[in-house]
Amino acid sequence: MSHQNGAERNGDRGVTQAPEGDYGSAFPNSRKVFVEGRQGVRVPMREISLSGGEPPLRVNDTSGPLGVDPHTGLPKLRAPWIEGRGGVIEGHTTYRPVDPDSAVAIPEALQNRPLRSTGANVTQMHYARRGDITEEMEFVAIREGMDAEFVRDEVARGRAIIPANINHPESEPMIIGRAFRVKINANIGNSAVGSSIEEEVEKLRWAALWGADTVMDLSTGKNIHETRQWIIRNSPVPIGTVPIYQALEKVDGVPEDLTWEVYRDTLIEQCEQGVDYFTVHAGVLLRYVPMTANRMTGIVSRGGSIMAKWCLAHHQESFLYTHFHEICELMAEYDVAFSLGDGLRPGSLADANDEAQFAELYTQGELTQIAWEHDVQVMCEGPGHVPMHMIKENMDKQLEWCSEAPFYTLGPLTTDIAPGYDHITSAIGAAQIGWYGTAMLCYVTPKEHLGLPNRDDVKAGVITYRIAAHAADLAKEHPGAQEWDDALSKARFDFRWKDQFNLALDPVTALEYHDETLPAEGAKVAHFCSMCGPKFCSMKITQDIRDYVAAGEAAEDVIRSGMEAKSAEFREKGGEIYVDVSGD
Amino acid sequence: MSHQNGAERNGDRGVTQAPEGDYGSAFPNSRKVFVEGRQGVRVPMREISLSGGEPPLRVNDTSGPLGVDPHTGLPKLRAPWIEGRGGVIEGHTTYRPVDPDSAVAIPEALQNRPLRSTGANVTQMHYARRGDITEEMEFVAIREGMDAEFVRDEVARGRAIIPANINHPESEPMIIGRAFRVKINANIGNSAVGSSIEEEVEKLRWAALWGADTVMDLSTGKNIHETRQWIIRNSPVPIGTVPIYQALEKVDGVPEDLTWEVYRDTLIEQCEQGVDYFTVHAGVLLRYVPMTANRMTGIVSRGGSIMAKWCLAHHQESFLYTHFHEICELMAEYDVAFSLGDGLRPGSLADANDEAQFAELYTQGELTQIAWEHDVQVMCEGPGHVPMHMIKENMDKQLEWCSEAPFYTLGPLTTDIAPGYDHITSAIGAAQIGWYGTAMLCYVTPKEHLGLPNRDDVKAGVITYRIAAHAADLAKEHPGAQEWDDALSKARFDFRWKDQFNLALDPVTALEYHDETLPAEGAKVAHFCSMCGPKFCSMKITQDIRDYVAAGEAAEDVIRSGMEAKSAEFREKGGEIYVDVSGD
Repeated sequence: MSHQNGAERNGDRGVTQAPEGDYGSAFPNSRKVFVEGRQGVRVPMREISLSGGEPPLRVNDTSGPLGVDPHTGLPKLRAPWIEGRGGVIEGHTTYRPVDPDSAVAIPEALQNRPLRSTGANVTQMHYARRGDITEEMEFVAIREGMDAEFVRDEVARGRAIIPANINHPESEPMIIGRAFRVKINANIGNSAVGSSIEEEVEKLRWAALWGADTVMDLSTGKNIHETRQWIIRNSPVPIGTVPIYQALEKVDGVPEDLTWEVYRDTLIEQCEQGVDYFTVHAGVLLRYVPMTANRMTGIVSRGGSIMAKWCLAHHQESFLYTHFHEICELMAEYDVAFSLGDGLRPGSLADANDEAQFAELYTQGELTQIAWEHDVQVMCEGPGHVPMHMIKENMDKQLEWCSEAPFYTLGPLTTDIAPGYDHITSAIGAAQIGWYGTAMLCYVTPKEHLGLPNRDDVKAGVITYRIAAHAADLAKEHPGAQEWDDALSKARFDFRWKDQFNLALDPVTALEYHDETLPAEGAKVAHFCSMCGPKFCSMKITQDIRDYVAAGEAAEDVIRSGMEAKSAEFREKGGEIYVDVSGD
Repeated sequence: MSHQNGAERNGDRGVTQAPEGDYGSAFPNSRKVFVEGRQGVRVPMREISLSGGEPPLRVNDTSGPLGVDPHTGLPKLRAPWIEGRGGVIEGHTTYRPVDPDSAVAIPEALQNRPLRSTGANVTQMHYARRGDITEEMEFVAIREGMDAEFVRDEVARGRAIIPANINHPESEPMIIGRAFRVKINANIGNSAVGSSIEEEVEKLRWAALWGADTVMDLSTGKNIHETRQWIIRNSPVPIGTVPIYQALEKVDGVPEDLTWEVYRDTLIEQCEQGVDYFTVHAGVLLRYVPMTANRMTGIVSRGGSIMAKWCLAHHQESFLYTHFHEICELMAEYDVAFSLGDGLRPGSLADANDEAQFAELYTQGELTQIAWEHDVQVMCEGPGHVPMHMIKENMDKQLEWCSEAPFYTLGPLTTDIAPGYDHITSAIGAAQIGWYGTAMLCYVTPKEHLGLPNRDDVKAGVITYRIAAHAADLAKEHPGAQEWDDALSKARFDFRWKDQFNLALDPVTALEYHDETLPAEGAKVAHFCSMCGPKFCSMKITQDIRDYVAAGEAAEDVIRSGMEAKSAEFREKGGEIYVDVSGD
């Protein structure tokens, strides 16, 4: 963990250096610790120190190495592992910048000499199926508190993926699968109407700080390649992209002009840069396109609509589908995972679970099998806008049709009527589908449908989805999930206010809200809160009850009469439950 | 609907007059309309005008008469109905102010001469069981788009309640029951550490404006009586209270000093003022108290802990339980509904669904039967902190044990780790339990566990719970619920930006967020959004697809091949789903 100083701007690229103190400000009384495992892996965790003799709590830490200058990029944690396994050679990037002298040219330190396979399959799935426990699997096992052999088995069976491009050695391995903690993804990326490289790198760092497990770079505007290079070199979490977005830019935004060759070259370019997973909308087939004509909101996926337009214009099957084997072969050479896109996902409740959506899901299942033939890791994307009672069908069909490949959903949003609050409309659906088995939840920010998320929106999206994911873990009774809740509840009950804040998903906001009503420092150690005030407190009374029971004052007759009355009541349960209590 | 001018402060009571323009600012392009029914009832609705030839959408309107000076109070809509039914006489309030000249003395115009029953039962349940359709039932039927006879039947069976104290004639009738739209409650109230009467009246108005169906005044500090008088006289929605809070103030905050007489007098005082429902923690029995001793967070309900303390101190059964028949008799004289409190609800996930909680719920069922003997309306309060997989058990047991009396839950919060975001942790649980059958959801604000909600928090809580309630209505496939979603989605798809904002639950925020990225007025009519920018748009492509299909260009072979392939796939479904698509 390298500690470099300074929050000042460095160099001339306009990227602010990650301020060293950000971690400390976000998480007071937390420190980054490393748990050592076999094969030399060291897994970062955030350890929250508590008062009152309570043991510290360790939680997952996605923030990555601290205090690193974004102009130099993160240390290459996985480089020795990748090299150690062999089967790769270093080459030159095939990408040729339009103008190497332009203001957005990539600094030397952030350029990478891409590895590619010498012909061997270098995917985590391949190793897993061969019976090898990679360093990545070992890392993930410690991170999840699971057995490494179990991790290997889940990856081998395709029930979990470890997105880990050999050209993204900076990433700290993580796993997406329903036997593990539910993960969340944060989308960032510039677009035609706003945002700079600087802002996007800062959003990446910010999203990871608050708990994004992966980040998708959905840039569509200028300097897509350069933005992505900055992002990947500075990302401790896997990076996903939708390559068709960049391919479209290369043909000046005209879907009809897309070709397989332009797309393939874009894939290679991104494989070389180190993208860890690609959204590929190969399930949008020509024959499914007319199924969307009578929808309330047609095709709302950008990738889906691009491919639909191409199919119609050429009256041909999608080149993503017809070249799917070649795409698999390419991705196997770099270990890029598929995120099979849901280009026909519903954009409104009215379109939920319709023919078009499920036709594509079924095809995602076929494509999953093909990818697995190539030992390429796969997850499947899911909706979208779905009312609560129709959510489970999505999960059930996905598990069946896609042979338990991890599901990765956007929300789903459970109502359409609350633009400005779609982080909430979707967290309701996300928590549920996570409980049912979805492995990763793509966040939705308050700006969804309205504008581009800023820094505050990214944080709101990440925290909201951390809530949904954790609620899902709890509902799945995931081992250890409730420890965090218990630690916080105990702190709350003991009036350890600072512990309560420090244990919060967002300690800063918790403290700020407390300060609004009771700003005095004394209130942080007070045995009361603003709800009832200093004179009376329900928590205090409970303590009295405990003392009473502990002291044996809960006279036997009370307890016995309680038990007797209770059992009497339950005996009556089948019959009339009226009990006359008048006249005391 | 009286329109008085001015947002300036009036008089010397420091209560800001409801600004006339607030409704218009909150809901651009909306107007209040009235639907006329039998018995002369006129039901307010908010009509949202749309562009593009779309019909206006009418939605429920809880905001009450606009532009009324809080010093005069709202018009007494229900007075003629109450008088018309007879069986009531006007008397003098039994309440004696400590100091009539004090700064908080109630202005003449806000004083009420309380009605009480001449001995007849004047509850909506009584009328319903007698077969009478009251004006309140007629009003509610129009509001809900249901048949009045059905409303009567649901009230008669106890499956729904219409909280409507004869001394709160200002209220616009609403119904709480699972056959109707899911309702939400907003809590307000001053406490020992902050807030003035002025702020509370403003919060009431503000909560009702944004969609609170009922409001609970949980004041615990000074001037409880006066605060409540201001609130009731200005409230278009039913008001609930927890009378034990005020009773406790009368005995200087010492639970052991409470007596049945102090409590009874408090009930009478509040019945006379016009409180529509009382939270009564009569299910906290002496023998249940020791069950909480080993909990993670003991008793977190204020009312529950007060009664627990009393029971232990006196080693006697709760006077709320022993005097329950008398309480019923009193409430029948004014038509105050019970909200049977859940004093032993879990305050942490660790305590969810435990023995103490369910013991009390079982007793709530007994008390429901007793109240129904007196034709007193009842709903039952529920948790609390409950992980998702344990929520349904709460609903199932409540329906069974409490004979389908309406359930009214606080959240439940689905994780404990996010103080500062408990509106979200609880909206996840609230939406679910609403779907399962809960009739009213008590909001939780972002300040829960941390401080007292301010105006922004009240709005955040109300909007978040409107989302949860509507998501529940959709999941229940409540008739007409999806119309609103469809109208908004259609506007979105048609790029009718202003319609999209105006149809939002919170139009102000939606517009504000759009302005952040695309502030130009032109962008409000643009056929693109900030996600993809002006050059490419997935919605636009869908229009192309529609044109293509409409023009018959979706050549028959595409559609036919689509159908054939699809049916072939489904034939294969049971077998091997691998399809080789290589070699295009």
